[in-house]
Amino acid sequence: MTDWIKKIKWDDNGLLPVIIQDYQSKKVLMFAWMNEETLLASLKNKTTVFWSRSRQKEWLKGEESGHFQKIKSLHFDCDLDVLLVQVDQAGGIACHTGRESCFFNRINDNFEIENDGIVIKDPEKIYGKKND
Amino acid sequence: MTDWIKKIKWDDNGLLPVIIQDYQSKKVLMFAWMNEETLLASLKNKTTVFWSRSRQKEWLKGEESGHFQKIKSLHFDCDLDVLLVQVDQAGGIACHTGRESCFFNRINDNFEIENDGIVIKDPEKIYGKKND
Repeated sequence: MTDWIKKIKWDDNGLLPVIIQDYQSKKVLMFAWMNEETLLASLKNKTTVFWSRSRQKEWLKGEESGHFQKIKSLHFDCDLDVLLVQVDQAGGIACHTGRESCFFNRINDNFEIENDGIVIKDPEKIYGKKND
Repeated sequence: MTDWIKKIKWDDNGLLPVIIQDYQSKKVLMFAWMNEETLLASLKNKTTVFWSRSRQKEWLKGEESGHFQKIKSLHFDCDLDVLLVQVDQAGGIACHTGRESCFFNRINDNFEIENDGIVIKDPEKIYGKKND
């Protein structure tokens, strides 16, 4: 069934870069990492589970925020070393800053960083505490 | 102008994951890496330049295939450790296999890998030799 898992080219830390895209708007929402266990958990549960490099533990996306990501499709790239997951994003918020997408730091024509993402919900209200 | 470059969180190898998306269809085309030099070259030339980890050298996307990527927008994520670049993809082909996108290995409902990408141009005709 999942023999192809043996062919995946994990990085030196046993991780795989994962791109998360909204399955309808096609907006790129976030980027994270999976190891074999969290990939299998994601496949089984049809919701994204990542490996948190900063916390060094499994991270069920949405466990604190409620912003779960229901998996609609999964695609590996040509080299089997990157995964693209299209999701139905609960709450329309993927970023811990309360924005739809994590990619809100636009480099403008003057090569300056400009914030072009709207905060949909105050992170304090999402997480019940100050979160930066 | 580019003081924010000092704030970028490069990985242990001085690299940044880069997601390439078609600026019109919003299709995710490929995934690659940039170091500081290739990021600056990309900004300057308005075309993507990556760091090839396999070849350990700069890689002007399109230099062999003609499939250059004209940069339309650039966004960093909330943590300044991932870059999303929307491009105008020359030839409509980003993948070295001759497909529009590298993400053609779909995990289907039976958890099998299924190729759902169309080969637009034979790689032999792109590169003038067999290329897998």
